[in-house]
Amino acid sequence: MSISRVREQMVKDGIDAVIATSYENIAYLSRVIIMTQRIIPDRIAAVIVTLDNDPIIVVCSIEKEFAKRYSSIKDIRCYVEFTDSPIDIISGILYDSKMKKSRTGIEMRALSAHYYQELIKKLPQVSFVPVDELLESVRVIKSKGEIDLMQKAALATDRSIRRAFESVSSGDTDKTIANNIINALYAEGADSVAFLALGAGPNANLAHPFPINRSLQEGDIVRCDVGGIFSGYFSDIARTAIVGYASREIETLYKKLFEIQEYVIESAHSGRQAKELYFDCKRAFGKRGMELELPHIGHSLGLCLHENPLINAVNQTYFEENMVLAIEPIYIYNGFFLHTEDLVLVTPKGGKVLSRSTEWSDLFIINKRLRNRSSVINS
Amino acid sequence: MSISRVREQMVKDGIDAVIATSYENIAYLSRVIIMTQRIIPDRIAAVIVTLDNDPIIVVCSIEKEFAKRYSSIKDIRCYVEFTDSPIDIISGILYDSKMKKSRTGIEMRALSAHYYQELIKKLPQVSFVPVDELLESVRVIKSKGEIDLMQKAALATDRSIRRAFESVSSGDTDKTIANNIINALYAEGADSVAFLALGAGPNANLAHPFPINRSLQEGDIVRCDVGGIFSGYFSDIARTAIVGYASREIETLYKKLFEIQEYVIESAHSGRQAKELYFDCKRAFGKRGMELELPHIGHSLGLCLHENPLINAVNQTYFEENMVLAIEPIYIYNGFFLHTEDLVLVTPKGGKVLSRSTEWSDLFIINKRLRNRSSVINS
Repeated sequence: MSISRVREQMVKDGIDAVIATSYENIAYLSRVIIMTQRIIPDRIAAVIVTLDNDPIIVVCSIEKEFAKRYSSIKDIRCYVEFTDSPIDIISGILYDSKMKKSRTGIEMRALSAHYYQELIKKLPQVSFVPVDELLESVRVIKSKGEIDLMQKAALATDRSIRRAFESVSSGDTDKTIANNIINALYAEGADSVAFLALGAGPNANLAHPFPINRSLQEGDIVRCDVGGIFSGYFSDIARTAIVGYASREIETLYKKLFEIQEYVIESAHSGRQAKELYFDCKRAFGKRGMELELPHIGHSLGLCLHENPLINAVNQTYFEENMVLAIEPIYIYNGFFLHTEDLVLVTPKGGKVLSRSTEWSDLFIINKRLRNRSSVINS
Repeated sequence: MSISRVREQMVKDGIDAVIATSYENIAYLSRVIIMTQRIIPDRIAAVIVTLDNDPIIVVCSIEKEFAKRYSSIKDIRCYVEFTDSPIDIISGILYDSKMKKSRTGIEMRALSAHYYQELIKKLPQVSFVPVDELLESVRVIKSKGEIDLMQKAALATDRSIRRAFESVSSGDTDKTIANNIINALYAEGADSVAFLALGAGPNANLAHPFPINRSLQEGDIVRCDVGGIFSGYFSDIARTAIVGYASREIETLYKKLFEIQEYVIESAHSGRQAKELYFDCKRAFGKRGMELELPHIGHSLGLCLHENPLINAVNQTYFEENMVLAIEPIYIYNGFFLHTEDLVLVTPKGGKVLSRSTEWSDLFIINKRLRNRSSVINS
């Protein structure tokens, strides 16, 4: 299915062969999710698709049994690390498939300059063209199964954050909240946590802070941005809360930000262009006397965290039904991040939120009950 | 300190400028650990080192505040995503530093072919040379602070696995053990878990299985290979256990494997060559009537998981004092992995194990007490 969609695009673009080497495209084309691929980049894997031959997957021999177990591609070739060059195996396959003078697509953004140079040296007659966008364009329309999985992942992430916010007790730190989110995410079935940025108080002005051991203080803004991985697919949810109480000003600003997000989500219908949505959002900020400072307000996602369409001022992609988007307007308030991010399905009538297990329209107040209780005691 | 060591090597190799772009080298040279660098590869960062000018770090504007907070390099330049090309900023810096005709080192294994092509186009007179090995050779000798941190990380990982093995109860699955390891790792202070391979029973024949929801069965081999990240540095510990009881055969094989690991660790003294250690290990297998099937038995590590020296049949690197190694002989028993992996410090007298909080010389039997208790009840 994924292979035939790639072939359709290959025919359109006049491409004879594709060598996919990224984690996401190998997972998409073969169902083989190689756990260490992003952290041992030299141990490359590849899927080779031509128009007529059966597809082939190339993996390091240590992953052979794994590929045999999970691969939908039945022709599995292995290289022995430190003995064989994986590029030799790959170029050998192109030779055998009569592709040594072909127009062959490679992932220029994923392939290292090192392997790229080896490839052009070993296949001097091949004309290499980038297919990063071709492959992304195939992945961008999600199947029912992918949408269900991503909704499950998004809801699990949303619940994990909510529970961690609700369970904060006096003396807890950034790290306490983060660890509670993580424990909940794994209990919800996540295979791993790809990133968890959480900053409170002085760290709420950083985009991707590591959670630290600092006790929460009344009035701290707490912002987190969390990505779990479920069967290879990313969740990506951001939430903002405040400790103890919120000033009228910040409560109002958050409410406006949420309204802006709602408005942008409604506008995310099929046929709308990514950059139009960005400007819709920018205008919605302006109308409320706020400024949009960040250069993007969202992105598609799936087996990769940031996938085209990126929703910025220049992206000309038109949305289509069954794309999914992370819609994440951010307002910088006195240097601090107010941030809300949800998973949204594109439909002809507008975006449909898939990621809210509970209501987030009001700024979440952490530890409110505790504070109220202590106020009662003190009064 | 790290900058001056790079400069020493640059002088030796006749290199005028280095553009470091990998997660590990940016962390090493600037102390800036960018959480999303490996998962948003387009959002590149760079550290530029020349012999005479102050070093410069280039980050995406969204990471500006983070870089200001943590960077040891004070000259921070930013690019706005989707508006500026980061390669423009980087090549501009080389122009301004009078480096437009220089011999400039780049990380060919980390830089994407896409950015590489843009770089050579924008700096046509620069002669680019790979400095992957140069930078790795600087990182390979660890400071006291790095050794202490990595020992702490390794012991935390070892304890997390041990506790998870000890706390297994009836009905638990691969996923239960894995989640217990993960919860313990975060509680021990890990910033994240980079990978956790765990396979029991039918999955113990895979190098990097995702833990699944299958109840453990008596006689299952349980093998895990776990990498936590602590302040940017990897731990990498593998342990094997068995559920309920062990046959004499497997107990003996495990004991021999442990002996082999001990012998290899003792041989890992400064002055010894990586490939010699590999063959030491191969012979030690042979002497015990066992076969070493895997093409490597360990590797250095640090800010990266697999760093030179990789301990295989061809690596000619000589060990030096204060290198650290993950020593991990694997024996394939009827297709299943018996695996033990420890962190080892190279000293003039041999390797020193840094990663055992408790004894692992006998095969760990999971749930032994439970089984004994039920035997008593049944008898």
